[in-house]
Amino acid sequence: MILDGKMVSSKIREDIKNEISSFSIKPKLVDIQIGHNEASDIYIKNKEKACLSVGIEFECVRFEESSNEEDIVRKIEELNNDKRINGILIQSPIPDKFDFKDLVNHIDPEKDVDGLTNINIGKLANNIDGMVSCTPFGIMKLLEYYEIDLTGKNVVIVGRSNLVGKPLFNLMLNKNATVTICHSKTVDLKLYTKNADILVVAVGSKHLIKEDMVKEGSVVIDVGINRVDGVLYGDVDFNSIYEHVSYITPVPGGVGPMTVAMLLYNTVKNYKKSNIF
Amino acid sequence: MILDGKMVSSKIREDIKNEISSFSIKPKLVDIQIGHNEASDIYIKNKEKACLSVGIEFECVRFEESSNEEDIVRKIEELNNDKRINGILIQSPIPDKFDFKDLVNHIDPEKDVDGLTNINIGKLANNIDGMVSCTPFGIMKLLEYYEIDLTGKNVVIVGRSNLVGKPLFNLMLNKNATVTICHSKTVDLKLYTKNADILVVAVGSKHLIKEDMVKEGSVVIDVGINRVDGVLYGDVDFNSIYEHVSYITPVPGGVGPMTVAMLLYNTVKNYKKSNIF
Repeated sequence: MILDGKMVSSKIREDIKNEISSFSIKPKLVDIQIGHNEASDIYIKNKEKACLSVGIEFECVRFEESSNEEDIVRKIEELNNDKRINGILIQSPIPDKFDFKDLVNHIDPEKDVDGLTNINIGKLANNIDGMVSCTPFGIMKLLEYYEIDLTGKNVVIVGRSNLVGKPLFNLMLNKNATVTICHSKTVDLKLYTKNADILVVAVGSKHLIKEDMVKEGSVVIDVGINRVDGVLYGDVDFNSIYEHVSYITPVPGGVGPMTVAMLLYNTVKNYKKSNIF
Repeated sequence: MILDGKMVSSKIREDIKNEISSFSIKPKLVDIQIGHNEASDIYIKNKEKACLSVGIEFECVRFEESSNEEDIVRKIEELNNDKRINGILIQSPIPDKFDFKDLVNHIDPEKDVDGLTNINIGKLANNIDGMVSCTPFGIMKLLEYYEIDLTGKNVVIVGRSNLVGKPLFNLMLNKNATVTICHSKTVDLKLYTKNADILVVAVGSKHLIKEDMVKEGSVVIDVGINRVDGVLYGDVDFNSIYEHVSYITPVPGGVGPMTVAMLLYNTVKNYKKSNIF
Protein backbone atom coordinates (compact mmCIF):
# COMPACT_ATOMS: atom_id res chain seq x y z
CA MET A 1 0.00 0.00 0.00
CA ILE A 2 1.26 3.40 -0.99
CA LEU A 3 1.82 6.09 1.65
CA ASP A 4 0.42 8.85 -0.53
CA GLY A 5 2.24 12.00 0.53
CA LYS A 6 0.73 13.95 -2.33
CA MET A 7 -2.80 13.23 -1.15
CA VAL A 8 -2.13 13.71 2.58
CA SER A 9 -0.16 16.91 2.02
CA SER A 10 -2.93 18.34 -0.15
CA LYS A 11 -5.38 17.77 2.72
CA ILE A 12 -3.02 19.58 5.12
CA ARG A 13 -2.59 22.42 2.65
CA GLU A 14 -6.35 22.67 2.19
CA ASP A 15 -6.79 23.02 5.98
CA ILE A 16 -4.08 25.67 6.10
CA LYS A 17 -5.65 27.56 3.20
CA ASN A 18 -9.06 27.60 4.91
CA GLU A 19 -7.51 28.80 8.13
CA ILE A 20 -5.55 31.58 6.45
CA SER A 21 -8.62 32.79 4.52
CA SER A 22 -9.96 34.17 7.79
CA PHE A 23 -6.77 36.13 8.59
CA SER A 24 -6.83 39.83 7.84
CA ILE A 25 -3.05 40.02 7.59
CA LYS A 26 -1.34 37.19 5.71
CA PRO A 27 1.51 35.13 7.19
CA LYS A 28 4.88 35.62 5.52
CA LEU A 29 7.84 33.33 4.92
CA VAL A 30 11.33 34.48 3.93
CA ASP A 31 13.83 32.18 2.26
CA ILE A 32 17.46 33.33 2.26
CA GLN A 33 19.60 32.18 -0.65
CA ILE A 34 23.37 32.69 -0.59
CA GLY A 35 25.26 32.23 -3.84
CA HIS A 36 23.84 30.44 -6.88
CA ASN A 37 22.63 26.86 -7.12
CA GLU A 38 20.29 25.52 -9.78
CA ALA A 39 18.73 22.82 -7.61
CA SER A 40 18.06 25.45 -4.94
CA ASP A 41 16.36 27.66 -7.53
CA ILE A 42 13.87 24.85 -8.19
CA TYR A 43 13.24 24.24 -4.49
CA ILE A 44 12.72 27.94 -3.85
CA LYS A 45 10.28 28.22 -6.76
CA ASN A 46 8.34 25.24 -5.34
CA LYS A 47 8.20 26.80 -1.90
CA GLU A 48 7.00 30.07 -3.37
CA LYS A 49 4.26 28.30 -5.35
CA ALA A 50 3.17 26.33 -2.28
CA CYS A 51 3.05 29.46 -0.12
CA LEU A 52 1.03 31.46 -2.62
CA SER A 53 -1.40 28.57 -3.14
CA VAL A 54 -2.47 28.73 0.53
CA GLY A 55 -2.22 32.49 1.01
CA ILE A 56 1.22 32.83 2.61
CA GLU A 57 3.35 35.69 1.35
CA PHE A 58 6.79 34.59 0.18
CA GLU A 59 10.01 36.47 -0.29
CA CYS A 60 13.42 35.21 -1.35
CA VAL A 61 16.28 37.36 -0.06
CA ARG A 62 19.39 36.79 -2.19
CA PHE A 63 23.03 37.33 -1.24
CA GLU A 64 25.97 36.99 -3.59
CA GLU A 65 28.69 34.52 -2.65
CA SER A 66 30.96 37.54 -2.21
CA SER A 67 28.76 38.90 0.63
CA ASN A 68 30.07 39.32 4.17
CA GLU A 69 28.73 37.12 6.92
CA GLU A 70 27.99 40.28 8.95
CA ASP A 71 25.67 41.58 6.22
CA ILE A 72 23.73 38.32 6.24
CA VAL A 73 23.54 38.28 10.04
CA ARG A 74 22.32 41.88 10.03
CA LYS A 75 19.59 40.94 7.55
CA ILE A 76 18.56 37.93 9.68
CA GLU A 77 18.29 40.18 12.73
CA GLU A 78 16.19 42.63 10.77
CA LEU A 79 13.86 39.79 9.75
CA ASN A 80 13.77 38.55 13.36
CA ASN A 81 12.57 41.98 14.50
CA ASP A 82 10.05 42.39 11.70
CA LYS A 83 6.67 41.38 13.18
CA ARG A 84 5.30 40.80 9.67
CA ILE A 85 7.71 37.87 9.11
CA ASN A 86 6.58 34.53 10.58
CA GLY A 87 9.15 32.18 9.15
CA ILE A 88 12.80 32.44 8.12
CA LEU A 89 14.94 29.75 6.54
CA ILE A 90 18.32 29.57 4.87
CA GLN A 91 18.36 27.60 1.65
CA SER A 92 21.11 24.98 1.74
CA PRO A 93 23.65 24.33 0.41
CA ILE A 94 25.47 27.60 0.95
CA PRO A 95 28.99 28.43 -0.28
CA ASP A 96 31.79 26.81 1.76
CA LYS A 97 33.12 30.13 3.04
CA PHE A 98 30.05 30.42 5.29
CA ASP A 99 29.25 28.34 8.38
CA PHE A 100 25.69 27.11 7.95
CA LYS A 101 25.15 26.19 11.61
CA ASP A 102 26.47 29.52 12.76
CA LEU A 103 24.20 31.49 10.42
CA VAL A 104 21.12 29.40 11.26
CA ASN A 105 21.60 30.04 14.97
CA HIS A 106 21.07 33.75 14.39
CA ILE A 107 17.47 33.03 13.40
CA ASP A 108 14.88 33.70 16.14
CA PRO A 109 13.97 30.15 17.30
CA GLU A 110 10.26 31.03 17.03
CA LYS A 111 10.72 31.84 13.33
CA ASP A 112 13.08 28.92 12.67
CA VAL A 113 10.61 27.00 10.49
CA ASP A 114 13.29 24.47 9.52
CA GLY A 115 13.81 23.58 13.22
CA LEU A 116 17.59 23.79 12.91
CA THR A 117 18.60 26.17 15.72
CA ASN A 118 20.26 24.61 18.74
CA ILE A 119 17.32 25.61 20.91
CA ASN A 120 14.72 23.88 18.72
CA ILE A 121 16.83 20.74 18.43
CA GLY A 122 17.24 20.71 22.20
CA LYS A 123 13.50 21.28 22.72
CA LEU A 124 12.75 18.32 20.50
CA ALA A 125 15.12 16.08 22.46
CA ASN A 126 13.54 17.39 25.67
CA ASN A 127 10.06 16.76 24.25
CA ILE A 128 9.16 20.45 24.64
CA ASP A 129 6.96 22.15 22.03
CA GLY A 130 9.07 24.03 19.47
CA MET A 131 9.70 24.20 15.73
CA VAL A 132 10.27 20.74 14.27
CA SER A 133 12.24 20.14 11.09
CA CYS A 134 9.80 19.81 8.16
CA THR A 135 10.86 16.48 6.63
CA PRO A 136 10.79 14.40 9.84
CA PHE A 137 7.64 16.25 10.93
CA GLY A 138 6.03 15.39 7.59
CA ILE A 139 7.01 11.73 7.98
CA MET A 140 5.33 11.64 11.39
CA LYS A 141 2.16 13.21 9.97
CA LEU A 142 2.13 10.67 7.15
CA LEU A 143 2.44 7.74 9.57
CA GLU A 144 -0.23 9.32 11.75
CA TYR A 145 -2.63 9.65 8.82
CA TYR A 146 -2.29 5.95 8.02
CA GLU A 147 -2.60 5.12 11.72
CA ILE A 148 0.73 3.33 11.86
CA ASP A 149 1.53 2.93 15.54
CA LEU A 150 5.18 3.22 16.57
CA THR A 151 5.05 1.87 20.13
CA GLY A 152 7.61 -0.88 20.57
CA LYS A 153 8.36 -1.00 16.84
CA ASN A 154 11.89 -1.62 15.65
CA VAL A 155 12.65 1.54 13.67
CA VAL A 156 15.84 1.81 11.65
CA ILE A 157 16.83 5.19 10.21
CA VAL A 158 19.59 5.20 7.62
CA GLY A 159 21.22 8.63 7.58
CA ARG A 160 22.24 10.88 10.47
CA SER A 161 21.71 14.39 9.10
CA ASN A 162 20.58 17.27 11.31
CA LEU A 163 17.72 17.91 8.89
CA VAL A 164 16.26 14.39 8.84
CA GLY A 165 17.89 11.50 10.69
CA LYS A 166 18.60 13.05 14.09
CA PRO A 167 15.31 14.92 14.60
CA LEU A 168 13.34 11.93 13.31
CA PHE A 169 15.16 9.78 15.86
CA ASN A 170 13.82 11.98 18.67
CA LEU A 171 10.29 12.18 17.25
CA MET A 172 10.07 8.40 16.96
CA LEU A 173 11.65 7.80 20.36
CA ASN A 174 9.04 10.16 21.83
CA LYS A 175 6.41 7.87 20.25
CA ASN A 176 7.92 4.87 22.07
CA ALA A 177 9.67 3.21 19.13
CA THR A 178 12.99 1.44 19.62
CA VAL A 179 15.19 3.44 17.27
CA THR A 180 18.53 2.77 15.58
CA ILE A 181 20.48 5.22 13.42
CA CYS A 182 22.70 3.71 10.73
CA HIS A 183 25.05 5.67 8.49
CA SER A 184 28.04 5.47 6.17
CA LYS A 185 30.24 3.91 8.88
CA THR A 186 27.74 1.19 9.79
CA VAL A 187 29.14 -2.31 9.37
CA ASP A 188 26.70 -4.69 7.59
CA LEU A 189 23.81 -2.30 6.98
CA LYS A 190 21.57 -5.15 5.84
CA LEU A 191 21.70 -6.73 9.30
CA TYR A 192 19.83 -3.71 10.64
CA THR A 193 17.48 -2.91 7.76
CA LYS A 194 16.40 -6.55 7.38
CA ASN A 195 14.97 -6.53 10.93
CA ALA A 196 13.27 -3.13 10.76
CA ASP A 197 9.52 -2.94 11.26
CA ILE A 198 9.81 0.60 9.97
CA LEU A 199 12.72 1.56 7.74
CA VAL A 200 13.51 5.19 6.90
CA VAL A 201 16.20 5.91 4.34
CA ALA A 202 17.64 9.40 3.97
CA VAL A 203 21.11 9.25 2.50
CA GLY A 204 20.83 10.38 -1.11
CA SER A 205 22.07 7.21 -2.80
CA LYS A 206 19.98 5.90 -5.70
CA HIS A 207 18.39 2.52 -4.92
CA LEU A 208 20.71 1.79 -1.98
CA ILE A 209 18.00 -0.38 -0.42
CA LYS A 210 17.20 -3.51 -2.41
CA GLU A 211 14.71 -6.33 -2.05
CA ASP A 212 16.94 -8.52 0.14
CA MET A 213 17.46 -5.70 2.66
CA VAL A 214 13.89 -5.22 3.88
CA LYS A 215 11.68 -7.20 6.20
CA GLU A 216 8.56 -8.85 4.80
CA GLY A 217 5.50 -6.78 5.69
CA SER A 218 7.45 -3.76 6.96
CA VAL A 219 6.88 -0.04 6.40
CA VAL A 220 9.42 1.73 4.18
CA ILE A 221 9.87 5.51 4.07
CA ASP A 222 12.09 6.81 1.28
CA VAL A 223 13.45 10.31 1.83
CA GLY A 224 15.99 10.14 -1.00
CA ILE A 225 15.77 12.44 -4.00
CA ASN A 226 18.36 11.48 -6.58
CA ARG A 227 18.20 13.22 -9.95
CA VAL A 228 19.85 11.13 -12.67
CA ASP A 229 19.53 12.35 -16.27
CA GLY A 230 16.54 14.42 -15.30
CA VAL A 231 14.71 11.48 -13.68
CA LEU A 232 14.01 11.31 -9.92
CA TYR A 233 14.99 8.17 -8.03
CA GLY A 234 14.61 7.36 -4.36
CA ASP A 235 17.11 5.68 -2.03
CA VAL A 236 14.88 2.60 -2.20
CA ASP A 237 14.44 0.31 -5.19
CA PHE A 238 10.68 0.75 -5.12
CA ASN A 239 9.72 -1.72 -7.86
CA SER A 240 11.53 -4.71 -6.38
CA ILE A 241 10.39 -3.99 -2.83
CA TYR A 242 6.79 -2.89 -3.38
CA GLU A 243 5.22 -6.37 -3.18
CA HIS A 244 7.09 -7.37 -0.02
CA VAL A 245 6.14 -4.49 2.26
CA SER A 246 2.89 -3.38 3.84
CA TYR A 247 3.43 0.34 3.23
CA ILE A 248 5.90 2.30 1.15
CA THR A 249 6.37 5.94 0.05
CA PRO A 250 6.89 6.60 -3.66
CA VAL A 251 9.49 9.02 -5.04
CA PRO A 252 8.26 11.51 -6.10
CA GLY A 253 4.93 11.95 -4.31
CA GLY A 254 5.87 10.57 -0.89
CA VAL A 255 7.91 12.49 1.64
CA GLY A 256 8.69 15.48 -0.63
CA PRO A 257 5.22 17.07 -0.67
CA MET A 258 4.84 16.41 3.07
CA THR A 259 8.01 18.45 3.71
CA VAL A 260 6.60 21.46 1.86
CA ALA A 261 3.24 21.15 3.65
CA MET A 262 4.95 21.19 7.06
CA LEU A 263 6.90 24.29 6.10
CA LEU A 264 3.57 26.04 5.56
CA TYR A 265 2.27 24.51 8.80
CA ASN A 266 5.26 25.79 10.81
CA THR A 267 4.94 29.27 9.32
CA VAL A 268 1.26 29.48 10.27
CA LYS A 269 2.02 27.98 13.69
CA ASN A 270 4.35 30.86 14.49
CA TYR A 271 1.93 33.35 12.93
CA LYS A 272 -0.76 32.22 15.37
CA LYS A 273 1.64 32.61 18.31
CA SER A 274 2.55 36.14 17.24
CA ASN A 275 0.73 39.31 18.20
CA ILE A 276 -0.76 39.83 14.76
CA PHE A 277 -3.23 37.03 15.20
CA MET B 1 38.78 -6.60 32.19
CA ILE B 2 37.45 -3.96 34.53
CA LEU B 3 36.84 -0.43 33.26
CA ASP B 4 38.19 1.20 36.39
CA GLY B 5 36.29 4.47 36.75
CA LYS B 6 37.78 5.08 40.16
CA MET B 7 41.33 5.00 38.81
CA VAL B 8 40.62 6.97 35.61
CA SER B 9 38.58 9.60 37.45
CA SER B 10 41.33 10.07 40.03
CA LYS B 11 43.79 10.80 37.21
CA ILE B 12 41.38 13.37 35.77
CA ARG B 13 40.90 14.93 39.21
CA GLU B 14 44.65 15.04 39.73
CA ASP B 15 45.06 16.96 36.45
CA ILE B 16 42.30 19.36 37.44
CA LYS B 17 43.84 19.90 40.86
CA ASN B 18 47.22 20.71 39.33
CA GLU B 19 45.64 23.12 36.90
CA ILE B 20 43.63 24.91 39.59
CA SER B 21 46.67 25.26 41.85
CA SER B 22 47.99 27.92 39.46
CA PHE B 23 44.74 29.96 39.53
CA SER B 24 44.74 33.03 41.78
CA ILE B 25 40.94 33.00 42.06
CA LYS B 26 39.31 29.60 42.58
CA PRO B 27 36.49 28.27 40.37
CA LYS B 28 33.13 27.95 42.08
CA LEU B 29 30.21 25.56 41.68
CA VAL B 30 26.70 26.11 43.05
CA ASP B 31 24.25 23.25 43.57
CA ILE B 32 20.60 24.23 44.05
CA GLN B 33 18.52 21.92 46.19
CA ILE B 34 14.74 22.30 46.34
CA GLY B 35 12.88 20.48 49.11
CA HIS B 36 14.36 17.61 51.11
CA ASN B 37 15.65 14.28 49.83
CA GLU B 38 18.03 12.00 51.69
CA ALA B 39 19.64 10.50 48.60
CA SER B 40 20.23 14.02 47.28
CA ASP B 41 21.91 14.98 50.56
CA ILE B 42 24.46 12.21 49.99
CA TYR B 43 25.06 13.23 46.37
CA ILE B 44 25.49 16.87 47.36
CA LYS B 45 27.96 15.96 50.12
CA ASN B 46 29.95 13.88 47.61
CA LYS B 47 30.02 16.74 45.14
CA GLU B 48 31.18 19.14 47.83
CA LYS B 49 33.96 16.76 48.89
CA ALA B 50 35.07 16.29 45.30
CA CYS B 51 35.11 20.04 44.66
CA LEU B 52 37.11 20.86 47.75
CA SER B 53 39.60 18.07 47.02
CA VAL B 54 40.65 19.77 43.77
CA GLY B 55 40.32 23.40 44.90
CA ILE B 56 36.87 24.29 43.57
CA GLU B 57 34.66 26.31 45.91
CA PHE B 58 31.28 24.73 46.51
CA GLU B 59 28.00 26.17 47.71
CA CYS B 60 24.63 24.51 48.15
CA VAL B 61 21.71 26.92 47.86
CA ARG B 62 18.64 25.46 49.53
CA PHE B 63 14.99 26.24 48.87
CA GLU B 64 12.06 24.90 50.86
CA GLU B 65 9.39 22.98 48.97
CA SER B 66 7.04 25.86 49.83
CA SER B 67 9.18 28.34 47.82
CA ASN B 68 7.85 30.16 44.78
CA GLU B 69 9.23 29.35 41.36
CA GLU B 70 9.88 33.08 40.85
CA ASP B 71 12.20 33.17 43.87
CA ILE B 72 14.21 30.26 42.49
CA VAL B 73 14.37 31.83 39.04
CA ARG B 74 15.51 35.11 40.56
CA LYS B 75 18.30 33.28 42.41
CA ILE B 76 19.36 31.47 39.23
CA GLU B 77 19.57 34.80 37.41
CA GLU B 78 21.62 36.26 40.21
CA LEU B 79 24.03 33.30 39.97
CA ASN B 80 24.11 33.69 36.17
CA ASN B 81 25.23 37.28 36.56
CA ASP B 82 27.76 36.56 39.27
CA LYS B 83 31.15 36.33 37.52
CA ARG B 84 32.55 34.39 40.48
CA ILE B 85 30.21 31.43 39.75
CA ASN B 86 31.40 29.04 37.04
CA GLY B 87 28.89 26.24 37.35
CA ILE B 88 25.24 25.97 38.38
CA LEU B 89 23.17 22.82 38.69
CA ILE B 90 19.81 21.87 40.11
CA GLN B 91 19.84 18.72 42.20
CA SER B 92 17.15 16.32 41.01
CA PRO B 93 14.62 15.11 41.95
CA ILE B 94 12.73 18.28 42.82
CA PRO B 95 9.20 18.44 44.26
CA ASP B 96 6.43 17.75 41.72
CA LYS B 97 5.01 21.26 41.94
CA PHE B 98 8.06 22.56 40.03
CA ASP B 99 8.87 21.97 36.36
CA PHE B 100 12.48 20.77 36.24
CA LYS B 101 13.00 21.46 32.52
CA ASP B 102 11.60 24.95 32.89
CA LEU B 103 13.86 25.80 35.84
CA VAL B 104 16.97 24.33 34.21
CA ASN B 105 16.46 26.44 31.11
CA HIS B 106 16.91 29.59 33.19
CA ILE B 107 20.54 28.61 33.82
CA ASP B 108 23.08 30.42 31.61
CA PRO B 109 24.07 27.69 29.07
CA GLU B 110 27.76 28.47 29.71
CA LYS B 111 27.31 27.65 33.41
CA ASP B 112 25.02 24.68 32.77
CA VAL B 113 27.55 22.07 33.95
CA ASP B 114 24.92 19.31 33.75
CA GLY B 115 24.41 20.03 30.04
CA LEU B 116 20.62 20.01 30.38
CA THR B 117 19.55 23.31 28.82
CA ASN B 118 17.89 23.11 25.42
CA ILE B 119 20.81 25.00 23.88
CA ASN B 120 23.46 22.58 25.16
CA ILE B 121 21.42 19.55 24.09
CA GLY B 122 20.99 21.10 20.66
CA LYS B 123 24.71 21.92 20.43
CA LEU B 124 25.56 18.32 21.21
CA ALA B 125 23.22 17.04 18.48
CA ASN B 126 24.74 19.61 16.12
CA ASN B 127 28.24 18.55 17.17
CA ILE B 128 29.05 22.07 18.36
CA ASP B 129 31.23 22.58 21.45
CA GLY B 130 29.10 23.16 24.56
CA MET B 131 28.49 21.75 28.03
CA VAL B 132 28.01 17.98 27.89
CA SER B 133 26.07 16.07 30.53
CA CYS B 134 28.52 14.57 33.05
CA THR B 135 27.56 10.89 33.04
CA PRO B 136 27.64 10.35 29.26
CA PHE B 137 30.74 12.56 29.05
CA GLY B 138 32.38 10.40 31.73
CA ILE B 139 31.49 7.22 29.85
CA MET B 140 33.15 8.60 26.71
CA LYS B 141 36.30 9.51 28.68
CA LEU B 142 36.40 6.03 30.18
CA LEU B 143 36.13 4.36 26.75
CA GLU B 144 38.75 6.78 25.44
CA TYR B 145 41.14 5.90 28.26
CA TYR B 146 40.90 2.20 27.44
CA GLU B 147 41.22 3.00 23.72
CA ILE B 148 37.93 1.36 22.85
CA ASP B 149 37.13 2.51 19.33
CA LEU B 150 33.47 3.13 18.50
CA THR B 151 33.61 3.40 14.71
CA GLY B 152 31.10 1.02 13.12
CA LYS B 153 30.38 -0.65 16.46
CA ASN B 154 26.85 -1.79 17.27
CA VAL B 155 26.05 0.24 20.39
CA VAL B 156 22.86 -0.44 22.32
CA ILE B 157 21.81 2.01 25.03
CA VAL B 158 19.05 0.85 27.39
CA GLY B 159 17.33 3.94 28.84
CA ARG B 160 16.26 7.16 27.15
CA SER B 161 16.72 9.80 29.87
CA ASN B 162 17.78 13.35 29.08
CA LEU B 163 20.63 12.98 31.55
CA VAL B 164 22.18 9.80 30.13
CA GLY B 165 20.58 7.92 27.22
CA LYS B 166 19.84 10.72 24.79
CA PRO B 167 23.08 12.71 25.13
CA LEU B 168 25.12 9.50 25.06
CA PHE B 169 23.34 8.57 21.83
CA ASN B 170 24.62 11.77 20.22
CA LEU B 171 28.14 11.42 21.60
CA MET B 172 28.46 7.89 20.28
CA LEU B 173 26.87 8.73 16.94
CA ASN B 174 29.41 11.55 16.60
CA LYS B 175 32.09 8.87 17.09
CA ASN B 176 30.65 6.87 14.18
CA ALA B 177 28.96 4.10 16.14
CA THR B 178 25.67 2.62 14.94
CA VAL B 179 23.45 3.40 17.91
CA THR B 180 20.13 2.01 19.15
CA ILE B 181 18.13 3.29 22.12
CA CYS B 182 15.96 0.74 23.92
CA HIS B 183 13.55 1.54 26.78
CA SER B 184 10.59 0.30 28.78
CA LYS B 185 8.43 -0.02 25.65
CA THR B 186 10.99 -2.04 23.69
CA VAL B 187 9.68 -5.43 22.60
CA ASP B 188 12.17 -8.28 23.21
CA LEU B 189 15.03 -6.30 24.79
CA LYS B 190 17.33 -9.32 24.65
CA LEU B 191 17.20 -9.32 20.85
CA TYR B 192 19.00 -5.96 20.91
CA THR B 193 21.33 -6.39 23.88
CA LYS B 194 22.50 -9.83 22.69
CA ASN B 195 23.91 -8.29 19.50
CA ALA B 196 25.53 -5.25 21.07
CA ASP B 197 29.29 -4.79 20.72
CA ILE B 198 28.93 -2.11 23.38
CA LEU B 199 26.01 -2.24 25.79
CA VAL B 200 25.14 0.69 28.06
CA VAL B 201 22.44 0.21 30.67
CA ALA B 202 20.92 3.21 32.46
CA VAL B 203 17.46 2.38 33.72
CA GLY B 204 17.74 1.90 37.48
CA SER B 205 16.57 -1.71 37.69
CA LYS B 206 18.71 -4.07 39.77
CA HIS B 207 20.37 -6.79 37.65
CA LEU B 208 18.06 -6.28 34.67
CA ILE B 209 20.81 -7.52 32.36
CA LYS B 210 21.70 -11.18 32.86
CA GLU B 211 24.26 -13.54 31.37
CA ASP B 212 22.06 -14.67 28.46
CA MET B 213 21.47 -11.06 27.34
CA VAL B 214 25.01 -10.03 26.45
CA LYS B 215 27.25 -10.81 23.52
CA GLU B 216 30.40 -12.82 24.12
CA GLY B 217 33.42 -10.49 24.20
CA SER B 218 31.40 -7.29 24.30
CA VAL B 219 31.90 -4.12 26.36
CA VAL B 220 29.32 -3.50 29.11
CA ILE B 221 28.78 -0.11 30.79
CA ASP B 222 26.55 -0.15 33.86
CA VAL B 223 25.11 3.23 34.81
CA GLY B 224 22.59 1.83 37.30
CA ILE B 225 22.78 2.67 40.99
CA ASN B 226 20.21 0.66 42.93
CA ARG B 227 20.36 0.85 46.70
CA VAL B 228 18.76 -2.23 48.29
CA ASP B 229 19.05 -2.62 52.07
CA GLY B 230 22.01 -0.27 52.05
CA VAL B 231 23.89 -2.22 49.38
CA LEU B 232 24.59 -0.81 45.90
CA TYR B 233 23.67 -2.88 42.85
CA GLY B 234 24.05 -2.06 39.17
CA ASP B 235 21.57 -2.68 36.36
CA VAL B 236 23.87 -5.50 35.23
CA ASP B 237 24.36 -8.82 37.00
CA PHE B 238 28.13 -8.29 37.14
CA ASN B 239 29.16 -11.68 38.59
CA SER B 240 27.41 -13.80 35.98
CA ILE B 241 28.51 -11.64 33.07
CA TYR B 242 32.08 -10.79 34.03
CA GLU B 243 33.73 -13.83 32.42
CA HIS B 244 31.86 -13.46 29.13
CA VAL B 245 32.73 -9.89 28.26
CA SER B 246 35.95 -8.14 27.30
CA TYR B 247 35.33 -5.01 29.41
CA ILE B 248 32.83 -4.16 32.11
CA THR B 249 32.30 -1.34 34.63
CA PRO B 250 31.78 -2.29 38.27
CA VAL B 251 29.11 -0.73 40.53
CA PRO B 252 30.31 1.11 42.53
CA GLY B 253 33.62 2.32 41.10
CA GLY B 254 32.69 2.48 37.43
CA VAL B 255 30.61 5.25 35.91
CA GLY B 256 29.78 7.01 39.21
CA PRO B 257 33.20 8.51 39.95
CA MET B 258 33.57 9.48 36.28
CA THR B 259 30.37 11.53 36.54
CA VAL B 260 31.73 13.51 39.47
CA ALA B 261 35.08 14.06 37.74
CA MET B 262 33.35 15.48 34.66
CA LEU B 263 31.34 17.85 36.81
CA LEU B 264 34.64 19.29 38.04
CA TYR B 265 35.94 19.28 34.47
CA ASN B 266 32.92 21.23 33.18
CA THR B 267 33.17 23.77 35.98
CA VAL B 268 36.84 24.43 35.22
CA LYS B 269 36.10 24.49 31.49
CA ASN B 270 33.70 27.38 31.96
CA TYR B 271 36.07 29.04 34.42
CA LYS B 272 38.77 29.09 31.75
CA LYS B 273 36.35 30.64 29.24
CA SER B 274 35.36 33.37 31.69
CA ASN B 275 37.10 36.69 32.14
CA ILE B 276 38.60 35.75 35.51
CA PHE B 277 41.15 33.46 33.93
